[in-house]
Amino acid sequence: MHTNDKLKALREEMLVHGVDAMIIPTGDPHQNEYLPEHYKSRAWISGFTGSAGTAVVTKDHAGVWTDSRYFLQAEIQFADSEFELHKLVVQGMPEYADWLADTLSPKSVVGFDANVMPLGLVDTLIEKFEAKGILVKTDFEPFGRIWKDRPGLSKEPIFEHDVKYAGRSRQEKISSIRDEMKKCGAEYYLVTALDDIAWLLNLRGRDIECNPVFISYVLFSPEKVYLFIDENKVDAGLRQRLESDNIALKSYDAIRHYVAEIGKDHSILVSPASLSYGLYKNIGTDNIIRKDSPIMHAKSLKNEVEQRHVRNAMVKDGRALTHFFIWLEEALGRGETPTEYELTRKLIEFRSQQEGYYGESFDAIIGYRGNGAIIHYKPEKETAAAVKPEGVLLVDSGGQYNDGTTDITRTIALGPVSNEIKDHYTRVLKGHIAVADVIFPKGTRGIQLDSLARQFLWQKGITYNHGTGHGVGFFLNVHEPPQGIANGLGERGVTVILPTTLTSNEPGYYKKDSHGIRTENLVVCHEVEGNSDFLYFETVTLFPIDKSMIDKDIMSPAETKWLNDYHQRVYQDLAPGLDEKAKKWLEEKCSAL
Amino acid sequence: MHTNDKLKALREEMLVHGVDAMIIPTGDPHQNEYLPEHYKSRAWISGFTGSAGTAVVTKDHAGVWTDSRYFLQAEIQFADSEFELHKLVVQGMPEYADWLADTLSPKSVVGFDANVMPLGLVDTLIEKFEAKGILVKTDFEPFGRIWKDRPGLSKEPIFEHDVKYAGRSRQEKISSIRDEMKKCGAEYYLVTALDDIAWLLNLRGRDIECNPVFISYVLFSPEKVYLFIDENKVDAGLRQRLESDNIALKSYDAIRHYVAEIGKDHSILVSPASLSYGLYKNIGTDNIIRKDSPIMHAKSLKNEVEQRHVRNAMVKDGRALTHFFIWLEEALGRGETPTEYELTRKLIEFRSQQEGYYGESFDAIIGYRGNGAIIHYKPEKETAAAVKPEGVLLVDSGGQYNDGTTDITRTIALGPVSNEIKDHYTRVLKGHIAVADVIFPKGTRGIQLDSLARQFLWQKGITYNHGTGHGVGFFLNVHEPPQGIANGLGERGVTVILPTTLTSNEPGYYKKDSHGIRTENLVVCHEVEGNSDFLYFETVTLFPIDKSMIDKDIMSPAETKWLNDYHQRVYQDLAPGLDEKAKKWLEEKCSAL
Repeated sequence: MHTNDKLKALREEMLVHGVDAMIIPTGDPHQNEYLPEHYKSRAWISGFTGSAGTAVVTKDHAGVWTDSRYFLQAEIQFADSEFELHKLVVQGMPEYADWLADTLSPKSVVGFDANVMPLGLVDTLIEKFEAKGILVKTDFEPFGRIWKDRPGLSKEPIFEHDVKYAGRSRQEKISSIRDEMKKCGAEYYLVTALDDIAWLLNLRGRDIECNPVFISYVLFSPEKVYLFIDENKVDAGLRQRLESDNIALKSYDAIRHYVAEIGKDHSILVSPASLSYGLYKNIGTDNIIRKDSPIMHAKSLKNEVEQRHVRNAMVKDGRALTHFFIWLEEALGRGETPTEYELTRKLIEFRSQQEGYYGESFDAIIGYRGNGAIIHYKPEKETAAAVKPEGVLLVDSGGQYNDGTTDITRTIALGPVSNEIKDHYTRVLKGHIAVADVIFPKGTRGIQLDSLARQFLWQKGITYNHGTGHGVGFFLNVHEPPQGIANGLGERGVTVILPTTLTSNEPGYYKKDSHGIRTENLVVCHEVEGNSDFLYFETVTLFPIDKSMIDKDIMSPAETKWLNDYHQRVYQDLAPGLDEKAKKWLEEKCSAL
Repeated sequence: MHTNDKLKALREEMLVHGVDAMIIPTGDPHQNEYLPEHYKSRAWISGFTGSAGTAVVTKDHAGVWTDSRYFLQAEIQFADSEFELHKLVVQGMPEYADWLADTLSPKSVVGFDANVMPLGLVDTLIEKFEAKGILVKTDFEPFGRIWKDRPGLSKEPIFEHDVKYAGRSRQEKISSIRDEMKKCGAEYYLVTALDDIAWLLNLRGRDIECNPVFISYVLFSPEKVYLFIDENKVDAGLRQRLESDNIALKSYDAIRHYVAEIGKDHSILVSPASLSYGLYKNIGTDNIIRKDSPIMHAKSLKNEVEQRHVRNAMVKDGRALTHFFIWLEEALGRGETPTEYELTRKLIEFRSQQEGYYGESFDAIIGYRGNGAIIHYKPEKETAAAVKPEGVLLVDSGGQYNDGTTDITRTIALGPVSNEIKDHYTRVLKGHIAVADVIFPKGTRGIQLDSLARQFLWQKGITYNHGTGHGVGFFLNVHEPPQGIANGLGERGVTVILPTTLTSNEPGYYKKDSHGIRTENLVVCHEVEGNSDFLYFETVTLFPIDKSMIDKDIMSPAETKWLNDYHQRVYQDLAPGLDEKAKKWLEEKCSAL
């Protein structure tokens, strides 16, 4: 079906339902970072497949608002359709709403499906439109009718994540969350974030690519915990175990009925970040406590059992990368020129040889030369560049194992590189080490550590246009809120970094059309022994950092020592499971600078 | 009058007016940092003279809530009275309100004078008390009756701050502020912060110790600017000049009438930080735009004329300090042991020999040995320590000149010091240099630079319990919002640092009962030449940093170079106006490390 035909079908629906403009966001009922296929209606209607953007369709206009990462891609994908690109000034802002407010006349009707849009956004839209006398229809969902081959929701069964990995039983977790509910006076708690649910119940699923979660809701009532899910996904044994833990299964859609039935004199806790406006409006009581998810906070603290498993997952991941990079060196040595896309397949192949591998934790970003400078680059089979024994290659990837989630970036030289590249590479490395080696007082926020990572680039009047770190889940989402290391006042910048949290450390530098550099390890935060007012990071990722691009003249003795100590540990931990050839390769990569 | 007799008089007033508990804050109608004598009713009623704290008096209890800086002082000052110390857990929080809410029964009446309390605080109190059924009386002001020898308001004349210093005429400033009013749709603008008024009108006064401001309000109407002031303070010539600039003089108290008369269909801009609840409630329209003061933002940017004068004021201040420290060395050499208090007098003496001196910009903090570790120490004549040729001396002081406001801290060794002190001193210096030498992108906030100053102390698991920097006025308040360098999410932490702002750079370290170390210079922010996306600091304070306590082993080559370059500039700028003896002294202090 051609995009313009889809538009025609949509406009007919709009006419029938009296809608003058439709907003089609990138979203689903849980505000997932990666969308289930079923909810990719913005991509379906517009043909634009980038991960962020909002389509707006009126009688005589069709546009997509997206940010600078996707300008080129959108223009290509709109070439043969009526859709036009609107360039966002500020990433993530609803600038289309201003356009609509200026374009539509009073009494016009704007329609959208508030079930796939977060609470805060819809509140903003309604306020903006009402100020102009524009009417809002929040239950306009035509895709169920016009999208003929729309994929259904996943039917994949869910499965237990054994307590030997999780470290705490679901009963323990439920009980500790009930304590948090008491603290804020909540009798009910509506859990909407899928990774919160997976963590709480020690369950995993396969409903979303790269994220081992399953589509569901959880509702705490004063006596029970209800899990709302397609019941076909739960086998009889698991159902029995859940029921014996006082967890009742209900159909996914029954959540609307259950929250509607909560009486006016009861209080309910909700977390706006993952709650849709549609479900929110269904809640029966006005006594709604809006609060950051207490499960999110509990989940961010990795217990000792989880930490132990994370360290083991890192050994497996490091060995897989060892095999991958040896294969790449040899392939290039044989005169082969594999594409970036083929490299992503090879990574999966090597990771899948490791025990407990479940899948990749995100689509690998493998960028050769100028492609490395495209921060969210995803090599596609048809257009990926061929890699040759020259220039710089950036490899950012991660695996899901039943004992942990990994995320690692290495940048390697495939031949001689310029002094400029060496300077950039070394400054990125110095920033990485500044974070890896920092000691900081309790109460410190991510924004305070961010400048340590950037300071050496700043000296040259350059920086990078992404955060320095994000929280990471345990056999869960690779981007896990709330903590991080970032240069803004968002959640990742202002959240206090707590002991036992797992966070990435990934400064970078990108020169357009030339090269991209990023060095990323994951770190666990701990109290300093003997001085519990202070914290430090344990680097848990294990893989050598390319020494060939280091400008030794600008490394301090302390930085060189950190690198040598790290490499010694990498060798000691990875070598035992490797064959002699790989050991030898690793030994050279881990030799002292 | 004994404190207990004052309490008796207050309780009689409370009985007559049906007030069960009175809150007496540290405040005045403009929320000045330093209070005019007239408004020191909290100190008068309680006998506690610290700069922060709130007294609460009920029928059977009298207490003062203050923070840890003042625990010792308060206990001494309450020794012979009924007052009791309540230790604040968090500095500045209205914890007394929780105590009152817990102690009083419903229908009790809490009274206070909302004319000396900021808008936000009173809103919080009313909400807290009303939730408990406690009534609030916001116009209870008994001190006019019971404080018999209460000082009146200052009668000091105001004077022009010549445009040759200010760089912009009052007409220009008024016109640019009118542009800001237009941007936010304000027809009226009530200016309540005294330094905003002084800056706007290029006027100065002598109503508050150390701050060259005068008690007044300004109101922008659509056609005119009104200055509300005790008209006796304005001489005929100045009045004429103001009137020819379309500025009308009105009596100070007339502000209430003028804001009350603003019609319901008009909008008014107010800045909550300096606005009292009492005056706010008087405003005639509900169309009130609450916003950070646009004058505060304009004032924080120092124009080129101001910058030029600041550099000149720094030369004068540096020469005064040169004479002061030479005098101190010689006095100690003669076997004298001047007290910390005598040193504060000497500083005034040497500064007052400089051209255009107006007074000190704050009460000098001169702390010898363990006194240096008391961050807000103010030596008193009776109790000041005698300084001997041994140990460490911290000298934090500043001057008001008609061409600038200074604020400088130096820590000097008066004899041999321990390796521990050298280590602390050198880490503070490295942090100071990290800020002084940083290059950072536009958009960076103070909280991002703060960790650069602390990183070397953090390495040892130590830090300091104050901000790293505050904005500084131009012949105005030494603490001037909004920007700064701080480790929290308050105004000084989150404000973006703009080119041409003037800020202090003052990391420190304090070991209780042993020593205090702080090294403070003022810095002006500039765009990097040839790369206007990035900024740097120009250090404008000119005085040598004691080299005798530096541990050279932990100084990097770049840090040593910064120090040597700085000292070379100090010598070049200060030497020309000094006699041969002083030149020689300075040359030695500025020699290369």
